[in-house]
Amino acid sequence: MWSFHAFVTRGCLRTYSIDEKGLEHIIYFAIENWWTGDRTSLLTGKPAIFNIDAVEESEVVLINKANFEMLCAHIPAFNTLISGILEKSLATMQNRITSTISYTAEQKYQQFLDKYPDMALRIPQHMIASYLGITPETLSRIRRRP
Amino acid sequence: MWSFHAFVTRGCLRTYSIDEKGLEHIIYFAIENWWTGDRTSLLTGKPAIFNIDAVEESEVVLINKANFEMLCAHIPAFNTLISGILEKSLATMQNRITSTISYTAEQKYQQFLDKYPDMALRIPQHMIASYLGITPETLSRIRRRP
Repeated sequence: MWSFHAFVTRGCLRTYSIDEKGLEHIIYFAIENWWTGDRTSLLTGKPAIFNIDAVEESEVVLINKANFEMLCAHIPAFNTLISGILEKSLATMQNRITSTISYTAEQKYQQFLDKYPDMALRIPQHMIASYLGITPETLSRIRRRP
Repeated sequence: MWSFHAFVTRGCLRTYSIDEKGLEHIIYFAIENWWTGDRTSLLTGKPAIFNIDAVEESEVVLINKANFEMLCAHIPAFNTLISGILEKSLATMQNRITSTISYTAEQKYQQFLDKYPDMALRIPQHMIASYLGITPETLSRIRRRP
């Protein structure tokens, strides 16, 4: 079970699932000043379905569920901050679903470069391919084009 | 700009984008007792990037942004309810991203049938295909298999 909300102070983490064939599928990356964690597990108390590990040497602040809820309940400004982040996460995921179901591989990669230029430089190509839901070979082909 | 939170009391709505080729991509459906709306537009006040219309004859309760925020601010139980729904929406979207980037077309359709058996009976096949990010032809092929 994933018991923490994690705030990244340095580095880069990835959240991913592993399918029955052992293939990894990256749901999202988190770099400095981003929150991460398995929200479903935190919410339901059920075992985490995602794995989280570091893409590069990282530092995170972990806040356990009880403390996190206490902060939300007692500090209105923290609650407002977290609600705002939740809303933004929802918007980001909506956009990701849109591009995943409707963009070509080229468009997906171009959107990633436009939205996350920093990440594009820091994250290994095979992980970017996994995040975009395309094969590493397809990504290489796209990158070789002028 | 999308100015309302919508609560569906009867029927079924779809939220979708239209790409530059004029193709529709359905982000989600909402049936009875679901909330819907363009959250990104509501949050930022920017023009809606999604379209919303009815798949069948429907009734919705519309609450404008100011009233919705007033309810959240003054009725703690409403705020808790909405936070819970937000968290669940996030979890649902995470799962959708996972299946979209890692499942085959067959697996995507099977998951849709398992999760939303009611919707599968009510919603036209070409819209289900659009939601799953597969062509109507692929969906027909999957459905013809024994």
